[in-house]
Amino acid sequence: MLINGKSMRTIEVLDNFCLSIIDQNLLPYRLKYRKLNNLEDAFNAISKMWVRGAPLIGVTAAYGMSLAIKEDASDKNINIAEKKLLEARPTAVDLKWAISKVKEKIFSLKPRERFEVAWITSGELAEDSIKQCSKIGDFGKELILKNSPNNKSFNILTHCNAGWLACVDWGTALSPIYKLFNEGIDVHVWVDETRPRSQGALLTTWELMQHGVPNTLIVDNVGGHLMQSGKVDMCIVGSDRTASNGDVCNKIGTYMKALCAYDNNIPFYVALPESTIDFNLKSGVNNIQIEERSSKEVNHISGLNEVGVLNTVKIVNDDNMVYNPGFDVTPNKYVTKLITNKGVCDASTEGIQKLFK
Amino acid sequence: MLINGKSMRTIEVLDNFCLSIIDQNLLPYRLKYRKLNNLEDAFNAISKMWVRGAPLIGVTAAYGMSLAIKEDASDKNINIAEKKLLEARPTAVDLKWAISKVKEKIFSLKPRERFEVAWITSGELAEDSIKQCSKIGDFGKELILKNSPNNKSFNILTHCNAGWLACVDWGTALSPIYKLFNEGIDVHVWVDETRPRSQGALLTTWELMQHGVPNTLIVDNVGGHLMQSGKVDMCIVGSDRTASNGDVCNKIGTYMKALCAYDNNIPFYVALPESTIDFNLKSGVNNIQIEERSSKEVNHISGLNEVGVLNTVKIVNDDNMVYNPGFDVTPNKYVTKLITNKGVCDASTEGIQKLFK
Repeated sequence: MLINGKSMRTIEVLDNFCLSIIDQNLLPYRLKYRKLNNLEDAFNAISKMWVRGAPLIGVTAAYGMSLAIKEDASDKNINIAEKKLLEARPTAVDLKWAISKVKEKIFSLKPRERFEVAWITSGELAEDSIKQCSKIGDFGKELILKNSPNNKSFNILTHCNAGWLACVDWGTALSPIYKLFNEGIDVHVWVDETRPRSQGALLTTWELMQHGVPNTLIVDNVGGHLMQSGKVDMCIVGSDRTASNGDVCNKIGTYMKALCAYDNNIPFYVALPESTIDFNLKSGVNNIQIEERSSKEVNHISGLNEVGVLNTVKIVNDDNMVYNPGFDVTPNKYVTKLITNKGVCDASTEGIQKLFK
Repeated sequence: MLINGKSMRTIEVLDNFCLSIIDQNLLPYRLKYRKLNNLEDAFNAISKMWVRGAPLIGVTAAYGMSLAIKEDASDKNINIAEKKLLEARPTAVDLKWAISKVKEKIFSLKPRERFEVAWITSGELAEDSIKQCSKIGDFGKELILKNSPNNKSFNILTHCNAGWLACVDWGTALSPIYKLFNEGIDVHVWVDETRPRSQGALLTTWELMQHGVPNTLIVDNVGGHLMQSGKVDMCIVGSDRTASNGDVCNKIGTYMKALCAYDNNIPFYVALPESTIDFNLKSGVNNIQIEERSSKEVNHISGLNEVGVLNTVKIVNDDNMVYNPGFDVTPNKYVTKLITNKGVCDASTEGIQKLFK
């Protein structure tokens, strides 16, 4: 995707085994690249959330393992590096998955052979992610055009950030949008602010704007009214974890948007790479432990003050009780289709099985 | 209701025809009372939103007319005062209604008799509002206890601020909650933040806390997850305008909460004084023009900085497109009951007619 007109990825390989990432904490106010030269840098990138989004966290962790192995390829050091990286974001499943992918490949090798293989494996993981996201975009675009052959323009609502900033390139929910846009099709995105961390307002609007895709920011309360008044043609969101029956665990607030879409006969699509499907999880509703996050995310917010300096302010009283769950589960009956890297399927056990078994 | 343990109203009459109101713009950070001595003060109170909420705006406007008449009771001055006050919040129907109530009473009187009658009329409007809100509370409490005779505690979700701060006392949606609490019944309120103006976070949590009612702040995205996981016994919200078929126009985001309640078999109650019922409006969905508000409400937010000073920060890029509608319409099929000052009825043409005709 484009930044300032230049084609970019969220994680780029520079010379001398150095990586460059974007400090996503500073977006959209400032575009700051950070270099990752060693394990410590990769750990910071993940734990300080300079990088976020499951696929990007995974690729960064794989490179983090590689950088640790470059310095010391002993079994002992590899285990230390793994332990450290796993602690960077304890709940991120892609972290664990990417690290084990690297370990699998190097386990039986001699220490001096390990770094090269680890580095290549990390690069392959990045390329695989890009291919998967691109496929999601192609399948999603096809689905949209097939279902609305007479539509000259599309108004698409999305929640949170499931764009290329969360991946290496393309994104998941936003990938079909970029594919439509790149073909010259008239597409406009309604972007949910996505409180409390405001990933929609901060990241999704920024990445869409950088690529030139028209978009409008709305607070999370607005989607229902928009759908009721005919201003939304479809919703597309991502998924953090997909049950094998098609129930979808995604950013808090997703479920309500799905209800609105259902009430107004609007397609509600969920775009996801197959890695988010948990084949061991029969159904999602009330079966997934929802991460409870800090009340500080609700009580405090950052923004630019009068002189343009990024400042954090307290927006409610400290003595308020706050409850801040990070995700919710959308029952499969409200999901029109799943858009995956393998194709489009019904959000049902049969639909998923047909595509993946 | 209580502030710092003392029984208070949102508008109080002091000696010498002076009024005292709370500057609600500064809540919850600072409790500042302001005195209103003349028309200009009343105009400022309404236009600068020191007072807000339909019932309170109405009573303040009536007193504003009285204060204008106190200075000059001529027909000419009364018309000037009316024109000025109507401009303070152009879309507030209660403003118009309260002013016409005062004018009706004094129209045929001699100028020197007018002030006393206007002042008494204003006081009556305040008392009427309190009585109506208290009745809403009584009817709501009865309904809740009747429908859940075995419940020992109640978790109630509310959106925006339809509490006593929006009225003279008691509130509308919060009135049944205060009535339950005052009888020693265990009640806990889930308070929607209510972006973009955050009336839930700023006002509802504050007034509940002042009265001692346990409450927890949540962002607007959370209600669906809470209802799905059995943590909400009912929703109660207010209404800005009620169609004669029971469709409810209320703060943006209300509709989505009603959908969630419906999906999870949770009662969704709307509490309202009869003045919000528009008997000329057959149905609400797509028949009510929704006020579009400034993008600044979405882009900027105020809070306390590190040294405790109230500061406004810009939370998204200026070049973002923003759409900021103020209200949405909840179709009557998602409203379990209307709780009015005349009693409880179905949200339907028949239900409303039975109670009001």
